[in-house]
Amino acid sequence: MLFAIIMAGGSGTRFWPKSRRDRPKQLLTLHGDASMLQQTVARIAPLVPAERIFVVTGADQAEATRAQLPRIPAANVVAEPRPRDTAPCVGLAAEIVAAQDPDGVMIVMPADHVIRPEQVFINAVKAAVAVVEDAPASLVTFGVKPTRPETGYGYIQRGEALEAREGVAVHRVAQFREKPDRGTAERFLASGDYAWNAGIFVWRARAILNEIRRHKPLLGAALARVGAAWGTSAGPDVLAAEFPEMERTPIDKAVMEKAGDVKVLEVVYDWNDVGDWRALRSLLPADADGNAVRGDVAAVDTRNSVILSDDGGLIATIGLDDVVVVQAGGATLVARRDRLDQLKAMVEGLGDRGYESYL
Amino acid sequence: MLFAIIMAGGSGTRFWPKSRRDRPKQLLTLHGDASMLQQTVARIAPLVPAERIFVVTGADQAEATRAQLPRIPAANVVAEPRPRDTAPCVGLAAEIVAAQDPDGVMIVMPADHVIRPEQVFINAVKAAVAVVEDAPASLVTFGVKPTRPETGYGYIQRGEALEAREGVAVHRVAQFREKPDRGTAERFLASGDYAWNAGIFVWRARAILNEIRRHKPLLGAALARVGAAWGTSAGPDVLAAEFPEMERTPIDKAVMEKAGDVKVLEVVYDWNDVGDWRALRSLLPADADGNAVRGDVAAVDTRNSVILSDDGGLIATIGLDDVVVVQAGGATLVARRDRLDQLKAMVEGLGDRGYESYL
Repeated sequence: MLFAIIMAGGSGTRFWPKSRRDRPKQLLTLHGDASMLQQTVARIAPLVPAERIFVVTGADQAEATRAQLPRIPAANVVAEPRPRDTAPCVGLAAEIVAAQDPDGVMIVMPADHVIRPEQVFINAVKAAVAVVEDAPASLVTFGVKPTRPETGYGYIQRGEALEAREGVAVHRVAQFREKPDRGTAERFLASGDYAWNAGIFVWRARAILNEIRRHKPLLGAALARVGAAWGTSAGPDVLAAEFPEMERTPIDKAVMEKAGDVKVLEVVYDWNDVGDWRALRSLLPADADGNAVRGDVAAVDTRNSVILSDDGGLIATIGLDDVVVVQAGGATLVARRDRLDQLKAMVEGLGDRGYESYL
Repeated sequence: MLFAIIMAGGSGTRFWPKSRRDRPKQLLTLHGDASMLQQTVARIAPLVPAERIFVVTGADQAEATRAQLPRIPAANVVAEPRPRDTAPCVGLAAEIVAAQDPDGVMIVMPADHVIRPEQVFINAVKAAVAVVEDAPASLVTFGVKPTRPETGYGYIQRGEALEAREGVAVHRVAQFREKPDRGTAERFLASGDYAWNAGIFVWRARAILNEIRRHKPLLGAALARVGAAWGTSAGPDVLAAEFPEMERTPIDKAVMEKAGDVKVLEVVYDWNDVGDWRALRSLLPADADGNAVRGDVAAVDTRNSVILSDDGGLIATIGLDDVVVVQAGGATLVARRDRLDQLKAMVEGLGDRGYESYL
């Protein structure tokens, strides 16, 4: 059976003032008419029924997450006692899946990415499932065909070509690469051998648990103890005791770069990790001057800007270029788009300025 | 006796979103802790008691004006039935003064300028009164010593030097000049013969009425009819009938440029006509980065900007230079300072965009 694991951690800084401590990006409706999380659940729903969809999130956000997903069983929203990066998160999910179905296959996907069109995604998931059904030890990743020399994403270099599945090309992974500099990204794009690492994985639960045990034996043993107690009355206590002590490490580094049978699917869809307010320029409809606008806005002599009025007030702009103006929750951000890398530090400093209530 | 006439007309566009149709600039508290109008009344109060202070304003604004000035008799707030520029306004005030005191002296001053220090202003008023007491037909204007080649003000060229009064130099006026271009303004500044036309006049009521009758006989006759009825039960009806038909013309052009005995005092004080949001940079205390800030503001990597949060929300800025951000009355303006000349047109266009409620 196929299970879906939606990774919904994350803090509330990159989309401030809309995001807050208890309202991180995946819970926000940034485009369309549903939150990023709700859109992610809807994306996989054609292949996975609600009772096999799990959401792993932070303890602070579990309640709001359940409220947004009334059709998902409350117990399927799993609260991490403390953030430990993706390896413990993925391992915990794999234990839960394996406990329900020893041969269960799982897709792991971030809660806060945009993928279009959905049919191409669905087709890629089917291809991945076919791959792991043939080769039960395989770990499959999604590699998005790059369209620009992006320096903000990790890359996957393709190795030997294997047979195509459902029309999707399958390759061995030659290597994973961290976010490159501009020149390297241009070389990656020109070579045609590299894909963006989209953070989506498909594998049998037992396969990833085996690999975790092999490469991170302490983590594997701790996960096994949690898995053994899962579903019993001791489950919550064992999770609370074990999870915070697990090694804080990403699954890519902990396992994927070392595992034996790692494959990459070449997926060809629009993909956007919605990294910050800049991303809305390609997600919201643009006006004739290239502005992405939502709510009551009067933009005069204004270009290439993102202007959101989510509190009901009017925002009027004159003479702006490449600026982000967002009003939400009683706060207004006005920032040059190319300075948004300072947003996190600004938000983290609000407490020192006496503005804790806006965190 | 000395009377004060405060000209408090004006629309609500240049300080939008704080200014609105029924709340023009002079009624706003833009700096300090009182409105521009209240600060203007306080400035002249050491020389003129409340019952001899008159405020001429628009019909839409009379009520709000009276509410701001509880110590001024309600009848002293005179509502123009329709805006007719400054010649009818000044003439109406002169008729009212002459009716109370045939030898009355009046100072005419705008409601929305900043003058510092006040003692220098008071001293200049005393000097002007001394001049018109000696020469009853004189029209006296205030010429502010210029400190920069400002292109936004009118200028007065000084002619023959007369005796100083109260330590203030008195000259005949050689000519009035409209707002100059940059090169002309630089020449004016270098010559030392030019002063900024500050829009403040001192004269006997009868002297200005005589000059109006001489140069604008139709206007003079209409004003005389209003003056004859003033204070009788017919007063309001005569004003309502006559005023809208009066010639719409500024007092400078209608009379001052043609009158025989026009003198200019050289006044040396800080003067600011608070033309638009830019002006607040010199009126509000600036932070270390040259920002004028009021209310809850977090300005990061931001310079030379004006940021006002008057609705109680937080405004956070990142990476701005020379930008105006103002939040008031449920609306937010974000504008490059050098594009503020588009503000009037933007505000006037709000109705067409469906945002009438913000006018």
